[in-house]
Amino acid sequence: MGAGKHADPRGENTTMAKRPTIHDVAAAAGVSRGTVSRVLNDDRYVSPAAHAAVRRAIAETGYIVNRNARSLVTQRTGSVVMVLSEPHEKVFEDPNYSTTIRTAIRRLGERDVSLVIMLAGDDGDRERVVRYVRGGHADGVLLMSTHAGDPLVDELESLRIPAVACGAVIGKENVIPYAAADDREGARQMTRYLVEQGRRKIATITGPMDTPGGIQRLEGFADVLGRKASRKLIEHGDWTQLSGESAMARLIERTPDLDAVFVASDLMAAGALSTLRAAGRQVPGDVAVGGFDDSSVAATTHPPLTTIRQPLAEVAEETVRLLLTLVDGGGPVDPVILPTRLIVRESA
Amino acid sequence: MGAGKHADPRGENTTMAKRPTIHDVAAAAGVSRGTVSRVLNDDRYVSPAAHAAVRRAIAETGYIVNRNARSLVTQRTGSVVMVLSEPHEKVFEDPNYSTTIRTAIRRLGERDVSLVIMLAGDDGDRERVVRYVRGGHADGVLLMSTHAGDPLVDELESLRIPAVACGAVIGKENVIPYAAADDREGARQMTRYLVEQGRRKIATITGPMDTPGGIQRLEGFADVLGRKASRKLIEHGDWTQLSGESAMARLIERTPDLDAVFVASDLMAAGALSTLRAAGRQVPGDVAVGGFDDSSVAATTHPPLTTIRQPLAEVAEETVRLLLTLVDGGGPVDPVILPTRLIVRESA
Repeated sequence: MGAGKHADPRGENTTMAKRPTIHDVAAAAGVSRGTVSRVLNDDRYVSPAAHAAVRRAIAETGYIVNRNARSLVTQRTGSVVMVLSEPHEKVFEDPNYSTTIRTAIRRLGERDVSLVIMLAGDDGDRERVVRYVRGGHADGVLLMSTHAGDPLVDELESLRIPAVACGAVIGKENVIPYAAADDREGARQMTRYLVEQGRRKIATITGPMDTPGGIQRLEGFADVLGRKASRKLIEHGDWTQLSGESAMARLIERTPDLDAVFVASDLMAAGALSTLRAAGRQVPGDVAVGGFDDSSVAATTHPPLTTIRQPLAEVAEETVRLLLTLVDGGGPVDPVILPTRLIVRESA
Repeated sequence: MGAGKHADPRGENTTMAKRPTIHDVAAAAGVSRGTVSRVLNDDRYVSPAAHAAVRRAIAETGYIVNRNARSLVTQRTGSVVMVLSEPHEKVFEDPNYSTTIRTAIRRLGERDVSLVIMLAGDDGDRERVVRYVRGGHADGVLLMSTHAGDPLVDELESLRIPAVACGAVIGKENVIPYAAADDREGARQMTRYLVEQGRRKIATITGPMDTPGGIQRLEGFADVLGRKASRKLIEHGDWTQLSGESAMARLIERTPDLDAVFVASDLMAAGALSTLRAAGRQVPGDVAVGGFDDSSVAATTHPPLTTIRQPLAEVAEETVRLLLTLVDGGGPVDPVILPTRLIVRESA
């Protein structure tokens, strides 16, 4: 492939200012500008012949339809935006996003609605998301891993655009409808199981305490252990594998005789496993390790993770269903909480 | 988090039909509808007072500005769409996408342009991408891993929207400008290195033959080996780890005495390594393995991969630069080909 001169793909038409206008379409179709705009607005009072001529002219001229002009009537852009509120590098490390995004695209596709994805890792990103929504480019917003106090949520509220969250937004549970797994009960299931295995000193590595998964999985852990869930048996991570490694290191340094750990995500659990391996602790012999998610990593760790399956695909499907209900003008809608399940492998 | 009834976040305003209109804004601002639209269209002939009143009314009513009405003047939506033309599951397996997306978001952000991502894994997805672009929601299109003959490319051409590709689109090199690594020279670098290591029977696992990386890395391999690059030493993969495993299995079954393999991506090379391990072949003792990409997987394989570094971030930056040039009405633009570099680790 040489680096030879390029013909500009769009010849003279690259500059947006030179894009074909509605006048060009009218001229090409041999109709008035008003007729063109009536066709664009799905106005019934246009002859089939004129309708066909305008459609043909749009194709010929390459005119880009002003969807918002049409949406004055149809009130639809045909797309929703998924906002991923995590630092960019974390989005691609976490296998859970893949499942959720693929499911959302499929479900929305069945309704012929497009999913566009925007990352909101910093303030600049957030401002651009707000501008995009304010610009009327989306019929609804699907919030992913939104942290408590995220200013984006208030901005979206003020724009009065249908918005739902995949997992509750802490502090906004009664404002932003959501679908989620039963994080608290899932954590109870795992903690009960570790107790039943005869474990006496059970620690936990939580997620960020401004996320529902972080808070509620710790609550479930404490529900079962009561006063045994002492501060020194609790460490916090940020969902990344690295944070699981360092949290596990702090735990075994502080409580060398712990015999089990419930880790609030499989990815952090994978990190905890490598720390335990490096420290010469047998899993599950010396220390039982329980994860959460049953994501793709759970089966590939050594040993494979005993974990809590959250129905990621179902949660994504319900989130999409809630959003489409709001976009269609339905609602109010209830949150959807889906049950989790214990998956026993070899780590506990 | 109970499952109590939810107040609809947008009260009576959820249905798009009930969204505040330009009339509501005019009423709230105490000006005519014409004044509102002149403000929206950045018309100079509006008094500062009226301008302020309209801005205030827009905020109060939560009116969503019709960007396309404004763009009749500004000709901008402030966003570009990145189209990932791969099956959904592959997008999240490949670490290269992460680097490219993060770089593109950062670069576009410096120009305050939003990146929205759409997956185009099937025909339905492609139709929705075309509708989205036809709807005027993006100022430009950034094509990722577009395969030869993808109908999407012709559709975008007919829409005359600025479009560039990250890596050439086979058969459209003179139509869609692109930035890419020098795949062919990179493959020559690796093949020469394997020859210099005294390897006599060098095989290769290529990428899909409808992608530039697939074709040009095989060409570079053949440039160096000439007639020694016999058909039985060539197998094809689809960039996935699994395809690298099975391609490697076919190669060693057909040519048990091969002593080296150049694999056209690190992810496929990781698959080839596990097949060789399972077959009891020492790497690099029995078989030297060379990868391509120097992606995050290269350092984590056992043994770590000797590979070809392609400057992914720089390619992404150049792709964005080309696109913004076209969006700004510049061009024609030349393709950008960036040099690769041999990274010697332990697999060869």
